[in-house]
Amino acid sequence: MNGAQSLLATLQANGVEVCFGNPGTSEMHFVAALDSAPNVRGVLGLFEGVVTGAADGYARVTGKPAVTLLHLGPGLGNGLANLHNARRAHVPLLNVVGDHATYHSRYDAPLESDIASISRAVSGWHRRSARPDDLAGDALDALRAAYGPPGQIATLVLPADASWGEVASTRTYPLATRPIAPAPTADRISDALRVLRTKKTALFLGFDALRVEPLSLAYRVGQATGARVMSETFPTIQDRGAGVFTPDRQIYLSEFAISQLSQLEAIVLVGAKTPVGFFGYPDIPSELLPENCEVVVLSEPGVDAVAALEALVSEVNAPSATPTDAPKPEVPSGALTTMSLAQAVGALLPADTIVVDESNTGGLHLYGQLSGAAPHQLLTLTGGAIGYGLPAALGAALGGGGRRVLAIESDGSMMYTPQALWSMARENLDVTVLGLSNRSYAILNLELGRVGATSEGDASRQMLDLDNPTMSLAGLATSLGVPSQVVTTADELVEALRHSFATSGPTFIEVMLPKGLG
Amino acid sequence: MNGAQSLLATLQANGVEVCFGNPGTSEMHFVAALDSAPNVRGVLGLFEGVVTGAADGYARVTGKPAVTLLHLGPGLGNGLANLHNARRAHVPLLNVVGDHATYHSRYDAPLESDIASISRAVSGWHRRSARPDDLAGDALDALRAAYGPPGQIATLVLPADASWGEVASTRTYPLATRPIAPAPTADRISDALRVLRTKKTALFLGFDALRVEPLSLAYRVGQATGARVMSETFPTIQDRGAGVFTPDRQIYLSEFAISQLSQLEAIVLVGAKTPVGFFGYPDIPSELLPENCEVVVLSEPGVDAVAALEALVSEVNAPSATPTDAPKPEVPSGALTTMSLAQAVGALLPADTIVVDESNTGGLHLYGQLSGAAPHQLLTLTGGAIGYGLPAALGAALGGGGRRVLAIESDGSMMYTPQALWSMARENLDVTVLGLSNRSYAILNLELGRVGATSEGDASRQMLDLDNPTMSLAGLATSLGVPSQVVTTADELVEALRHSFATSGPTFIEVMLPKGLG
Repeated sequence: MNGAQSLLATLQANGVEVCFGNPGTSEMHFVAALDSAPNVRGVLGLFEGVVTGAADGYARVTGKPAVTLLHLGPGLGNGLANLHNARRAHVPLLNVVGDHATYHSRYDAPLESDIASISRAVSGWHRRSARPDDLAGDALDALRAAYGPPGQIATLVLPADASWGEVASTRTYPLATRPIAPAPTADRISDALRVLRTKKTALFLGFDALRVEPLSLAYRVGQATGARVMSETFPTIQDRGAGVFTPDRQIYLSEFAISQLSQLEAIVLVGAKTPVGFFGYPDIPSELLPENCEVVVLSEPGVDAVAALEALVSEVNAPSATPTDAPKPEVPSGALTTMSLAQAVGALLPADTIVVDESNTGGLHLYGQLSGAAPHQLLTLTGGAIGYGLPAALGAALGGGGRRVLAIESDGSMMYTPQALWSMARENLDVTVLGLSNRSYAILNLELGRVGATSEGDASRQMLDLDNPTMSLAGLATSLGVPSQVVTTADELVEALRHSFATSGPTFIEVMLPKGLG
Repeated sequence: MNGAQSLLATLQANGVEVCFGNPGTSEMHFVAALDSAPNVRGVLGLFEGVVTGAADGYARVTGKPAVTLLHLGPGLGNGLANLHNARRAHVPLLNVVGDHATYHSRYDAPLESDIASISRAVSGWHRRSARPDDLAGDALDALRAAYGPPGQIATLVLPADASWGEVASTRTYPLATRPIAPAPTADRISDALRVLRTKKTALFLGFDALRVEPLSLAYRVGQATGARVMSETFPTIQDRGAGVFTPDRQIYLSEFAISQLSQLEAIVLVGAKTPVGFFGYPDIPSELLPENCEVVVLSEPGVDAVAALEALVSEVNAPSATPTDAPKPEVPSGALTTMSLAQAVGALLPADTIVVDESNTGGLHLYGQLSGAAPHQLLTLTGGAIGYGLPAALGAALGGGGRRVLAIESDGSMMYTPQALWSMARENLDVTVLGLSNRSYAILNLELGRVGATSEGDASRQMLDLDNPTMSLAGLATSLGVPSQVVTTADELVEALRHSFATSGPTFIEVMLPKGLG
């Protein structure tokens, strides 16, 4: 048994089921070792941003780490943006970064690179294995680190000679048990109860507090205490739709969020961070809460939100309560707008769909219209590094146990990692992709004004315009093996969605929206 | 004047002419300031790997830095692989990485990231500007650092408030003068002369020693002393074709390179490093030179190769000498193979073309067949991080003063950064792209055997196969606005090349080669 086989045997024994990879020469023994670990499915990405984003999406829907296979510093670099998003999502993820043989590094060959420095920006745990015999133990340490809680990125650097060398030891290792998130301390619970009883308070939910059970508990606390129940803007995964309580989502734009939060005297954080501006702007505060608003941290990621909310329910004697469902949107007809798009999705979404949202301005009305849709799960852009949607949809489909995935992508964002479409076709996954064409970095046109930049010339405007030349998103998808079509009316979109939801394998629908902000 | 305007005014005054950018909200004032610096052309890339690779290609053909505009840590991460290649190419390059406003960083907003750690892996110079008044001076320091010699990557982090704040100072700065590379010391020259006179020696050329003048000088030294004249495998830029001396290129595969170098008693490095294996392999040495081969460093990057070679010519009284040109290939007919592909390119290449080679296995015969082509310049993959070719072609076309660019791309490599095609169409550049379709990571199939990995299963083979589904490279190019066609015979390729070379704007030719290694 060589080191790579030992590493993969350890991962397989500990329940790792998928390896998303984009290998190079230094990873050839790892690739060959996939044949000896039949329960670890190798999934090829044409670009490392696909690989890391897919591992993120997989982890969000399974709660389990996938392993990525990356090629030295440049491969890790290519995957870094989606690792940034995964770090912000607190998901467990294990990178295996192949490297030169240990004795080869000193020659500074062309691919020699500072892997540790790149890794530091995203990894909660980092190690370079030295010998074949270390790999089983290193893999276990990496898995334990990845699990957290909360989940984090563990990066294991695999020198080629550690991979190809024979393992001498016959030592066996216990399985890595997944640690259980602790309940919050009594102090925190009493602090939360104090403000809930005495102040205008919001329960502010994020991360693991946005699943069916904690949402239901939070609703009951809100009903019993009069507290508002709110949620972070960009959750890792949120249960939504009919029968699921929808909290007020923090508005993205700072000035509106400040207004939204302006009446609060206290905020109780459950799996979420204190709301701050996504960006700093001239003359708009970064802190969004009113000046004297008290902040109580009931639970942060890594502390059990369900236990936290159960404690509150019990202490306030919150009776059972069921929220009224939002109405399901009507099937739209006529012009294709951001509203009719959202209505079509809300009306037709099959139950249990995983919705990956990277729609930006084109998806303005999606969150609202999907409140009344069939029950589903929502994945969002946790770290702001665009190009996460298609890869995350790939990973969510592989981890979703056969559930349909709907990826809603803006044109600007999908152009970072379009290669994910090819992997969807290769794996024949039931993914519906809506590619929203507004031929513009519309959010940046908006931001250009918001930051107070005065743009009067063509040079600056051209940097935000995607219409010269016009891209064919549908043509791009077809070229990568995904059947595609273009829709220009709400009626065509409805028909295309119905067809796609009834068809196995991936389909791509290019949605022609009005240009820019419409 | 705000900080961004001050920064751009300084860059413009110092001759910076192009800004390749992929901006976000934190860069909006910089984008707006492009209107105030009309001599700095803003060129939009849809992905940061396009931006950084284009800046590399631009610098290779101009010797000047372009500025890149990147969006925080994730944007720098997306650009990192091509920055790795640029670092290995010793080109001058200036990154401007937008960041949160200085006062906003402490809130750990979603895009907050460890930019310095990521930058460290590729930058020879790194600074975070603190105030609008610092930007003019910081820009000058960055430019000076980028120039070297040798050229290197300078990364300037631009907080949003330094960008939007008003400049108070009226201080003016002198222009940044470009430093001149020094000649080698007398010791080095006498060492080189000693081995040239007493040992079986190779002059081993790299970096700035591969232009017309130093190649001619090296040829004369070889003729006068009997030394072999060789070149590194992956040069930054090399003058080639009729009338230009072609040294023996170091073979890529280590076992063949060892044989190629086995008779040497000494090697004189001129702009090149000691030849080492690209990767380490089991049972193949990393050091390629024979054990007792003496290594003399005549000049490294940053020392003037022309001065070094002139000194040798003078000391050995090398007479003028002109190498015999290799024959120009005949126009091929019949089957499309790696050989007929190379012959077609060699036969038809217009004079003064810039050839960007990322053809890998499909381009096996290109280097040989291009020896007798019309005079041209060759750019290669200096750092081994694939996905450099299309971006570099974009940058080379913008820096090439109207010269034709021919990019020769393997399918696997071009799928890392296909978005560059869109920018070529947008800027209407005279770029011919040959997309070589062999539906495989053919080099990795080769390497899988070479590293001694035994692969008997489908799982490993599938990780190296690009044929499920088959991609349409031509369809991809069309979707991004570049006219395309597919050729399946040498005759069709010849006709397509003739048409493309006579047509302004970009064209894409998908070249159907036999599958895998053919």
